[in-house]
Amino acid sequence: MSWGWGEGVPQDAIYWNMICERKGLYTCFPSGRVINAGKSQHNEDQACCEVVFVEQRPSPRGRLPSREGSGELDGGKKGFYFHYWALFDGHAGSGAAVMASQRLHLHICEQLRDLVEILQDPSPPPICLPHGAKTGPADPNHMSYTEDCGEVPNDAAPRFHLEKAVSHESLVIGAIENAFKHMDDQIERERASQHLAGGCCALAAIYLMGKFYVANAGDSRAIIIRNGEIIPMSREFTPETERQRLQFLALLRPELLGKEFTHLEFPRRIQPKELGKKMLYRDQNMNGWAYKKIEEDDLKFPLIFGEGKKARMMATIGVTRGLGDHDLKVFSSNIHIKPFLSCFPEVRVYDLTQYEHCPDDVLVLGTDGLWDVTNDKEVAGVVMEVLTSYEPNDPCRYTMVAQELVVRSRGVLKERGWRLANDKLGSGDDISVFVIPLGGPGNYT
Amino acid sequence: MSWGWGEGVPQDAIYWNMICERKGLYTCFPSGRVINAGKSQHNEDQACCEVVFVEQRPSPRGRLPSREGSGELDGGKKGFYFHYWALFDGHAGSGAAVMASQRLHLHICEQLRDLVEILQDPSPPPICLPHGAKTGPADPNHMSYTEDCGEVPNDAAPRFHLEKAVSHESLVIGAIENAFKHMDDQIERERASQHLAGGCCALAAIYLMGKFYVANAGDSRAIIIRNGEIIPMSREFTPETERQRLQFLALLRPELLGKEFTHLEFPRRIQPKELGKKMLYRDQNMNGWAYKKIEEDDLKFPLIFGEGKKARMMATIGVTRGLGDHDLKVFSSNIHIKPFLSCFPEVRVYDLTQYEHCPDDVLVLGTDGLWDVTNDKEVAGVVMEVLTSYEPNDPCRYTMVAQELVVRSRGVLKERGWRLANDKLGSGDDISVFVIPLGGPGNYT
Repeated sequence: MSWGWGEGVPQDAIYWNMICERKGLYTCFPSGRVINAGKSQHNEDQACCEVVFVEQRPSPRGRLPSREGSGELDGGKKGFYFHYWALFDGHAGSGAAVMASQRLHLHICEQLRDLVEILQDPSPPPICLPHGAKTGPADPNHMSYTEDCGEVPNDAAPRFHLEKAVSHESLVIGAIENAFKHMDDQIERERASQHLAGGCCALAAIYLMGKFYVANAGDSRAIIIRNGEIIPMSREFTPETERQRLQFLALLRPELLGKEFTHLEFPRRIQPKELGKKMLYRDQNMNGWAYKKIEEDDLKFPLIFGEGKKARMMATIGVTRGLGDHDLKVFSSNIHIKPFLSCFPEVRVYDLTQYEHCPDDVLVLGTDGLWDVTNDKEVAGVVMEVLTSYEPNDPCRYTMVAQELVVRSRGVLKERGWRLANDKLGSGDDISVFVIPLGGPGNYT
Repeated sequence: MSWGWGEGVPQDAIYWNMICERKGLYTCFPSGRVINAGKSQHNEDQACCEVVFVEQRPSPRGRLPSREGSGELDGGKKGFYFHYWALFDGHAGSGAAVMASQRLHLHICEQLRDLVEILQDPSPPPICLPHGAKTGPADPNHMSYTEDCGEVPNDAAPRFHLEKAVSHESLVIGAIENAFKHMDDQIERERASQHLAGGCCALAAIYLMGKFYVANAGDSRAIIIRNGEIIPMSREFTPETERQRLQFLALLRPELLGKEFTHLEFPRRIQPKELGKKMLYRDQNMNGWAYKKIEEDDLKFPLIFGEGKKARMMATIGVTRGLGDHDLKVFSSNIHIKPFLSCFPEVRVYDLTQYEHCPDDVLVLGTDGLWDVTNDKEVAGVVMEVLTSYEPNDPCRYTMVAQELVVRSRGVLKERGWRLANDKLGSGDDISVFVIPLGGPGNYT
């Protein structure tokens, strides 16, 4: 079931299809991927697809009494499975992307291990756990999850009227968010010994207990196509979409700019001779633009500069979330990018049980190599076109969609470079695509 | 045309309807409003409805040559009109709300005065204005707006390839954003001499050159109802919706918390005896929740606490944007609320020319007194119900909608307090509503 590869995959095209049987269920993980570097010797996109077992951590107070429906498996191990797909779009080397593709799901697993019993209990998660607890209250039959913290007898327990209800779903989101942080910390710790170069955007889909959790840090994107309708499952984190967060941080921590940058945004570089004139600008509070008199300080390079795919933070990087990049600095300076570059993902949730899905409903994950040249509507068109040309129970059909999406976004090599069907320039970037059936030949129970 | 009242309107019910004729056009500003304080002696909601003329600022280099279509009016004054409606929901006194209702439109006007010529010119706004310019380049026939800054002859002008295009619309947004800031600064300056107590949420709708700009700072709300469809035109700024911005500021500027608060959020207060246990928390990077071991520092009061209408920032205030409140401190402390409370609005734009509007399409502005008890769908229901009972060209019909919305949200005084038709508790808050026709008997040209 496990799948991966070592550092640096040679320039080539790879398609794969994975079918797994587990507990008599038939589950399908099709996907397609092509490597067309050009920019670098190796493909910097990496991917991972796994079914991961989350085993409950042994209780420090000894083994807990088994509870009905608490997920005890045949082998006596308590836990649950999650399904996992992830894309890692590396830059400045494939090291961070390779490590993240090998480890992120293990960090997610690790974060979830403490929650096994809590997630399997339909009652609300406990706000407070007793001393030394790892999996919830030591004896759940004897405790009120929400009010008792172990020492106070139940009848004397204080009542907290202003207590916020926390859902199981938000615990999973928190676990994924912290897993990204731990992944980033591991890359930081091991980057020297493991020679981990660069950084990567990360996009992961986790299927757990009836819900898809799509976590995104970077400019990869995910959409669901359901009954022809497009449902965005991520947003991109770029200098443009995160401008106000970055400007706010720069305003409060000007020392991070090393006297080289201004937190204000201007529509273009200002020339010294323009001092005293009025220039359009916007600050961390503004979405609109206004004129201001140009002062000495405004002659510095803007923290955010450029537009669209060319927008850069500190003239260095085009994404504002991702893993790695701990050594990345502004060219020929000692100014670090990292405090501005955040490793935290945004997690969106899609409840699979809220809708009856047909075999043509899919979740598509793609790196920017796909989305730069193929928009949502075009992707939905390819999905429908390819799927209808295969039998609904043919597990290959999703792989063929992924392959078609990649091939069409790459284009055909002509005299004037790689060209799409409409003669526009094809994607010069690495392209990776997962096409995940939501109501396909198998299911995720 | 001007409309307003002095500080402190006695507890009573007021409805009004304003019809104005201007340049042969028939325009209707209906609205409804009721005062049902109880909480305070005076209604702390204030409102304003105006047509404002923005006169071009005289050029410092003398009068500009007149240009075709440049908005020169009969009296020789150059400029344009905007239509303006605004609601100010005061707290801790009506002083800030009263002043804002009398002045905010003047600050918007002031910000727009520099833009008269630029907004009336269909070419893109100039990125840079020459020395001393107030209204754009001195002689527009002789200058390239986008590239020339006055001193360099046109043919020798440098070309800026990385130049961001800025729209007219975003200049208006910037003008409104800065007008809110100037309004807030004026309240700060004059609060002692004018005895301006408290602060206020501000919601303003500006109609200018075919577009509605809806600016919101606080928990008032605006929706458009078009052909029965509901289009949100604002979002609320509360400790819950702005949690991450506030936590981020608190993390970077811990001194603002005065050792009394922690930037972490917990689902309830932690008790000293719970030290060492594990508690759910989330920080500025998280949307989900996770467990952490309780440390000494976590025993401080959380910056954000409570849920829904009871959520408070620093245990003090339930909104996170607004005007005024410069003297507001945490109870019996020297900790100021203001740096967390922002005066900047979010501005949303609705292009009236993109859709054919019928007389039943309206923009509804309401303070939280309305929305706390009447949801979007119910408001849309009342709008349709009342409008169909009047002739489409009856200008009173919008006033009757506003009145009906207010009356229904207030309810009827029974033995067990003010009750709605469904016997739920009516709004105990001040209620103010504007109902603005988008395709009514008049238009906004």
